[in-house]
Amino acid sequence: GSDSSNKRHVGPPLDTVLQSLGRIQNSKERAKVLFEWLIAPVQPDDFFRCIWEKKPALIRRHNLKYYDGFFSTSEFDRILREDNVQFGVNLDVTSYSNGVRETHNPPGRALPLVVWDYYKNGCSLRLLNPQSFSITVWNTLSVLQELFTSMVGANMYLTPPGTQGFAPHYDDIEAFVVQLEGKKRWRVYSPRNSLEMLPQFSSVNFNDGDLGEPILETILEAGDLLYFPRGFIHQGDCLPDEHSLHITVSSFQRNSWVDLLDKLLPAALQIAADDDVEFRKGLPLDYLDYMGVQNTASFNPRRENFIRKVQELMGKLAEYAPVDAAVDQKAKAFLHDCLPPVLTPAEVDCSVYGAPARWENGDVKECIIQLEKDTPIRFLRGGIARLCSNGEACLLYYTTENSRVYHQEAPKSIEIEAEHVEALEYLLHCYPQYVTVESLPCEDMDVKLAVATMLFEKGLLTTKERLTPLTSSRANY
Amino acid sequence: GSDSSNKRHVGPPLDTVLQSLGRIQNSKERAKVLFEWLIAPVQPDDFFRCIWEKKPALIRRHNLKYYDGFFSTSEFDRILREDNVQFGVNLDVTSYSNGVRETHNPPGRALPLVVWDYYKNGCSLRLLNPQSFSITVWNTLSVLQELFTSMVGANMYLTPPGTQGFAPHYDDIEAFVVQLEGKKRWRVYSPRNSLEMLPQFSSVNFNDGDLGEPILETILEAGDLLYFPRGFIHQGDCLPDEHSLHITVSSFQRNSWVDLLDKLLPAALQIAADDDVEFRKGLPLDYLDYMGVQNTASFNPRRENFIRKVQELMGKLAEYAPVDAAVDQKAKAFLHDCLPPVLTPAEVDCSVYGAPARWENGDVKECIIQLEKDTPIRFLRGGIARLCSNGEACLLYYTTENSRVYHQEAPKSIEIEAEHVEALEYLLHCYPQYVTVESLPCEDMDVKLAVATMLFEKGLLTTKERLTPLTSSRANY
Amino acid sequence: GSDSSNKRHVGPPLDTVLQSLGRIQNSKERAKVLFEWLIAPVQPDDFFRCIWEKKPALIRRHNLKYYDGFFSTSEFDRILREDNVQFGVNLDVTSYSNGVRETHNPPGRALPLVVWDYYKNGCSLRLLNPQSFSITVWNTLSVLQELFTSMVGANMYLTPPGTQGFAPHYDDIEAFVVQLEGKKRWRVYSPRNSLEMLPQFSSVNFNDGDLGEPILETILEAGDLLYFPRGFIHQGDCLPDEHSLHITVSSFQRNSWVDLLDKLLPAALQIAADDDVEFRKGLPLDYLDYMGVQNTASFNPRRENFIRKVQELMGKLAEYAPVDAAVDQKAKAFLHDCLPPVLTPAEVDCSVYGAPARWENGDVKECIIQLEKDTPIRFLRGGIARLCSNGEACLLYYTTENSRVYHQEAPKSIEIEAEHVEALEYLLHCYPQYVTVESLPCEDMDVKLAVATMLFEKGLLTTKERLTPLTSSRANY
Amino acid sequence: GSDSSNKRHVGPPLDTVLQSLGRIQNSKERAKVLFEWLIAPVQPDDFFRCIWEKKPALIRRHNLKYYDGFFSTSEFDRILREDNVQFGVNLDVTSYSNGVRETHNPPGRALPLVVWDYYKNGCSLRLLNPQSFSITVWNTLSVLQELFTSMVGANMYLTPPGTQGFAPHYDDIEAFVVQLEGKKRWRVYSPRNSLEMLPQFSSVNFNDGDLGEPILETILEAGDLLYFPRGFIHQGDCLPDEHSLHITVSSFQRNSWVDLLDKLLPAALQIAADDDVEFRKGLPLDYLDYMGVQNTASFNPRRENFIRKVQELMGKLAEYAPVDAAVDQKAKAFLHDCLPPVLTPAEVDCSVYGAPARWENGDVKECIIQLEKDTPIRFLRGGIARLCSNGEACLLYYTTENSRVYHQEAPKSIEIEAEHVEALEYLLHCYPQYVTVESLPCEDMDVKLAVATMLFEKGLLTTKERLTPLTSSRANY
Repeated sequence: GSDSSNKRHVGPPLDTVLQSLGRIQNSKERAKVLFEWLIAPVQPDDFFRCIWEKKPALIRRHNLKYYDGFFSTSEFDRILREDNVQFGVNLDVTSYSNGVRETHNPPGRALPLVVWDYYKNGCSLRLLNPQSFSITVWNTLSVLQELFTSMVGANMYLTPPGTQGFAPHYDDIEAFVVQLEGKKRWRVYSPRNSLEMLPQFSSVNFNDGDLGEPILETILEAGDLLYFPRGFIHQGDCLPDEHSLHITVSSFQRNSWVDLLDKLLPAALQIAADDDVEFRKGLPLDYLDYMGVQNTASFNPRRENFIRKVQELMGKLAEYAPVDAAVDQKAKAFLHDCLPPVLTPAEVDCSVYGAPARWENGDVKECIIQLEKDTPIRFLRGGIARLCSNGEACLLYYTTENSRVYHQEAPKSIEIEAEHVEALEYLLHCYPQYVTVESLPCEDMDVKLAVATMLFEKGLLTTKERLTPLTSSRANY
Repeated sequence: GSDSSNKRHVGPPLDTVLQSLGRIQNSKERAKVLFEWLIAPVQPDDFFRCIWEKKPALIRRHNLKYYDGFFSTSEFDRILREDNVQFGVNLDVTSYSNGVRETHNPPGRALPLVVWDYYKNGCSLRLLNPQSFSITVWNTLSVLQELFTSMVGANMYLTPPGTQGFAPHYDDIEAFVVQLEGKKRWRVYSPRNSLEMLPQFSSVNFNDGDLGEPILETILEAGDLLYFPRGFIHQGDCLPDEHSLHITVSSFQRNSWVDLLDKLLPAALQIAADDDVEFRKGLPLDYLDYMGVQNTASFNPRRENFIRKVQELMGKLAEYAPVDAAVDQKAKAFLHDCLPPVLTPAEVDCSVYGAPARWENGDVKECIIQLEKDTPIRFLRGGIARLCSNGEACLLYYTTENSRVYHQEAPKSIEIEAEHVEALEYLLHCYPQYVTVESLPCEDMDVKLAVATMLFEKGLLTTKERLTPLTSSRANY
Repeated sequence: GSDSSNKRHVGPPLDTVLQSLGRIQNSKERAKVLFEWLIAPVQPDDFFRCIWEKKPALIRRHNLKYYDGFFSTSEFDRILREDNVQFGVNLDVTSYSNGVRETHNPPGRALPLVVWDYYKNGCSLRLLNPQSFSITVWNTLSVLQELFTSMVGANMYLTPPGTQGFAPHYDDIEAFVVQLEGKKRWRVYSPRNSLEMLPQFSSVNFNDGDLGEPILETILEAGDLLYFPRGFIHQGDCLPDEHSLHITVSSFQRNSWVDLLDKLLPAALQIAADDDVEFRKGLPLDYLDYMGVQNTASFNPRRENFIRKVQELMGKLAEYAPVDAAVDQKAKAFLHDCLPPVLTPAEVDCSVYGAPARWENGDVKECIIQLEKDTPIRFLRGGIARLCSNGEACLLYYTTENSRVYHQEAPKSIEIEAEHVEALEYLLHCYPQYVTVESLPCEDMDVKLAVATMLFEKGLLTTKERLTPLTSSRANY
Repeated sequence: GSDSSNKRHVGPPLDTVLQSLGRIQNSKERAKVLFEWLIAPVQPDDFFRCIWEKKPALIRRHNLKYYDGFFSTSEFDRILREDNVQFGVNLDVTSYSNGVRETHNPPGRALPLVVWDYYKNGCSLRLLNPQSFSITVWNTLSVLQELFTSMVGANMYLTPPGTQGFAPHYDDIEAFVVQLEGKKRWRVYSPRNSLEMLPQFSSVNFNDGDLGEPILETILEAGDLLYFPRGFIHQGDCLPDEHSLHITVSSFQRNSWVDLLDKLLPAALQIAADDDVEFRKGLPLDYLDYMGVQNTASFNPRRENFIRKVQELMGKLAEYAPVDAAVDQKAKAFLHDCLPPVLTPAEVDCSVYGAPARWENGDVKECIIQLEKDTPIRFLRGGIARLCSNGEACLLYYTTENSRVYHQEAPKSIEIEAEHVEALEYLLHCYPQYVTVESLPCEDMDVKLAVATMLFEKGLLTTKERLTPLTSSRANY
């Protein structure tokens, strides 16, 4: 995965990229374009086919400014000054020297004077979830999450010259190391055995004796990118005369087949048991005589019959597996994990967020926004809402009221009345196309307007054009 | 399953049967003999092949005294007088008339005067778990549980003449209605559809409109037995001029394949995920676009691929299924559910329970019982103990310290040292044969004596002959 | 408190004493007579005036058989054999030698063979709450609790010759050491300082260095009694050639003024705050400037004002103290702590427990017991029930359905309807006099009969004469 | 308390007042000056002597602009637009018409379009805790809390013309209604009886039938203030042609003597019980015979003795009352309730918040701030920290890391080493005087510097002059 070319790779700055995304109608498309920029000149298709989950990749750009505007130590300094950054909650002070990994967090708020003093004394600084403090990081991750359909997170690492902040270890996420300032020497090692390939959980801290030879050793410079899959052990240290700042963008934590099956299997078993009396038949009267750990060495032929029967039933389970319902459970959790979208000016204008209703000169002005039967509408973005059934009711889960701070808000959903469900499915499938209110598959015009207005006022829809307010009020409550 | 013969069936009284069981070496064999008596003249093999879990069976004996000694209203009267029977906890006062099912439990202790007054006013009395109060019921159920390897429970029902105490319903257990006194008219109905065959859970109370025609209608008399599988709706009412007393012996609650799979599947998935990287690979980036309830109508070919992949992984699961470990989880729960054994005089004599150690004339006498290398030993009964692994340690679960009251005691187990495990397996498999201490597969004689003594003192072993006490004390503690 | 006389003290055996109690009408009187026997020839009045809570007392009787029938090692041996005695729950195996106090409890049931083996190896045996296993101990304690109006408990201690089972310590209860068999040397020490006089909580284990000279050193022999108040350090050890068995009867744990005030003060404060606006007035704006630990050295005159104001309000509290309600909280807790009564044959005969209602020859016989307007009734015993208010409702708490095992049952009470309250107060105050149903202060005869019947059926009343059953049934339910 | 003068009262705008506070050295003094402005031309001393907790007061200013800059409907509109205001959490939509009080909160975020639509339809809007959204409100309340030494809160109420949003009721706080825009008619009623004077808890909603005649009826105009104590019933409604906006500033919730006694009494009792054996003596043997609700009518002379004894002990309690420790419990709770301070530019400059340490040109600049022995220091503000003992350790509680959102952060404290305690007491008492590091009462200069540096870096101290950074780093960690 190493790129040995010496060609300088040039691209637009992130601000420009983010602005230009606004011109792309489909939010999923926006995610692809932004990811393309992140890993350019590697092509996303190539990346996902040859590299993703398989091996590390180094993208060297010979362009120190490629990631300018993403994040910087100056912004970190501003955050310390202006925001309530707490040691141990948002910021970790760490060191790794002579094989000893230490954490130095004092209690309470992390003020610049104290933080920078640690830094000057050789400690590394890890800012957790910089998206809570930086709008650009928030915007970037929230766009990318539509590509990964799995939470996209980030941590910032600032390392003083000549030091290392962390012991070698592997993580449980796919990691994109975005080098923003200075340089860092990285060493990446293959998973030590097949059990540690694409692991479900992160490793402990290793020491050098646990490691073999790195499969990749390089000095990452500002503007470069290093990717490695979960399970690949890695360590990074600074050269004697230069600090390093990078953000690791991560995704695919607990997002593998086993995580889906974990939700699927109990549901499949319950359906099978409800449906197929074979599952409800009693166990053999004598099974404890030949089954169980104390009988594993027994040659009783009934063991084989018993095991065969179990396998037969397990074989049948697949027929009953409610795959879509299990996917919805994963989807619900993902929508709760999501960052809320950072709206473009156009999105604001054509949604409830830009409605002109306001207080002016002692009264409310322009508070009547009326969707009409021929108003073209669509969901605000592709990934902000999803229709799931919880057995009884049909619920629309959505991300727009999530917090920038992970899980600070409870999962958000609204219950959808039966007569509105089809309209919602229609709107979800038509995205990114606009459709008129009239075209919604509902019984009559009143219902069409009601469902569209409800979604619009909830902030989930945009109109194609900015709506013009009326002058009289709606009916009494 | 109905027996229309008019022949009187004669058998030994229960007391005699229980006593004679003591002469049978193998406790599993005892269980079969007792069950044979319970359903005589039907043969157990026939019963389990043709009737069990399939259809009701009526065993008519024309012998009012067949079940004499099992339980009686007089014993119930004695229990009310002598034991702390609590309304709502141990005794329910119920009525079902004009389609209305009511419970009349006052708070507090159920004293005869009040209980009998309810009875005289037409209420039915249900004594829950009479095994907590009657030694014969306890003994009977504790023997039978070795046949069913599933908890065997019981309830007593006393119904005044001309009344009905319960609405038609079905249960989640296999039911043996043992008619002890008087008569009762029973109507049994087939499960209403395949979903209600061998159901996992009991039904609500039905009313007549929910039912079709009974497949069995009969007047059960003292000495008769009526069996029906879970899922068969039933109701019983008394004739105008005769009360009815019966005990329903039950088993196989939550003891079907689904209950085993419920424990097996999560374990199988975890093993598969640990072992096979296919399970740990990430989900497709775009799966939320075509999977989930909102996409069930979609014709995206990726849906099929996704579902096929899920099924393929589910298919692989069977290979990883730790069937024995899952059986052990069921076994542990069963051993906790078990009644403790009612020991025969011979069992007492040859176990720690009959050890002559005692206080006499101001001092302890005969407190040294020494197993010797040639002492023949075996487990007290076949079903009282079981060796299970809990991942780390090996534990011997046992029933002898359980309570007659359901789950009043926590599950009982002792951790078995690694060097003792093989000896325990040997002892468990040799049952009902006696083996000498010497023959235990342990490193040396000291260990053999230690493990045998530990089990003997714990009350889990019997010797073939009563041991003769020594005269000097064991070493200091 | 030591009795140096050499006169042999003779008294009736406990069985005779307990039987003769039945002839005493007032249960409180019974308690006094039994206590008189326990401490004879010391007079109860003298005891409570001069010794109780003040100093140890030794009652030497030169009569080894004085306490015969209370408890014995043989009965303990029988209990081990017949009852489910659990190590650590009901029985402790202890030793104290070379200044080291150890507990040797294995897990599980305590079977005689193992228990006696510990004993032979020099371990002491402490049976907790022998009242759960011995009817005589139960009977004795349940009678005495009416004297102490505080829970009366007991532990049994069996000590091998030449050993000591416990380190020196003091307890939080008044202790009556009843020597039953053998001999024990006791050393009792005064509280070490005023803080340890009548302490709220038991001490840690001391060693000899913590102790001064004993104020009492004696060899207690069977038939003797040793009393010492809480806070008096004590230790006992056996002579080389004789074992010791004693029961310590205890009372007055958490039964002092502080325990009452603990319930009283929050209630008093709430009433004062509701009633007197002075308590609800705001704190001074500036009180944090001169009050609080950081200002204790300050000479601000406002401190004095503030403290004076607090003291003034505290002084007012006494006026609002709901003493009776707080006493009732203590009383409720005591009634929950109480052992249920062991009924005399006469008590059984004239109460619901002896009602002749029974099953006979296939039907219920004599189930109609009717209180008449001239039936003389009274409470079964003086201390078995108490009327308390819980703010809203009036509740009758009672002890008759308590368990012999401490707090195995929840507190028992019945809510009393307003129109029945006066009748209950009347019945409670009339005890031990019998009164007719007619004399109850209720609106009409129906209510009088209803309240009397309810209490009778609940087992709380006795009639003066055994009631004769009627022949027809009561009205339908 | 009504002011009938027609004189226009002029004062400086709030912004100017707040700025000028920065020139006052003592933060307690600042609080007084700000409060003076709030209630001008009434004098604070007069107010607290004659009005506070006693009666309503109307301050009419004939100056619509008096409170300009405090808050406005325009700012509320901005908050809806920019902040995450949630219905039911931060904003309530209410109405009261025809005697019916309703709440109309939908779920989720409150967006302007929807909020203003409710308003146009006659609903009132209550913004809870506007200090979480408005810096000026935050600043104002955080200054005032030093005067009240009790949490100062606020709610905003916006009412459409011709409507009323709330039913008549009384609150459990002292209320300052600050009329900001429009007009509102207020009716205030005396507490209905002495039990409702200065009540501990708010009332239910009343209807007109519950009320008598108002003692104050007025039309409050912008620039006016209305004060009423807790317990005074009040209702306000808008005139037909004008909306109303006011903020109610509140304090003294649960800040009365009873709240202090609630913490004091259990502590006093425990100390008394530890110290005085009279409290630990046993209750009389027979107290249940004459005490308790069932004996209240009894004339037993022992009742009087018992009650007298209780009162005597309660009387003694005052001697043991740990008033300062109880005050500290209240103080801790108050410090947790406090808003963090809004720092003045000068406070920033001379504290760690203005330390020049920063990232610049790839490295940390000016990160060494060194307190010297002659550096004058003091606490940042008077009320931001307090030294309390928790029995074992000495803790400094502080407010500077609290959140603007009520109790979003846990209580903040640092444990103070024994050798630092005296220095802290000295610093706390010297406020607002500056003292040199050297003057701190510590063992040696190193300790003095350590404690001062610790407090400075924690953000709790200011220096008199801005500190000049050094150029080299502190010693290694």
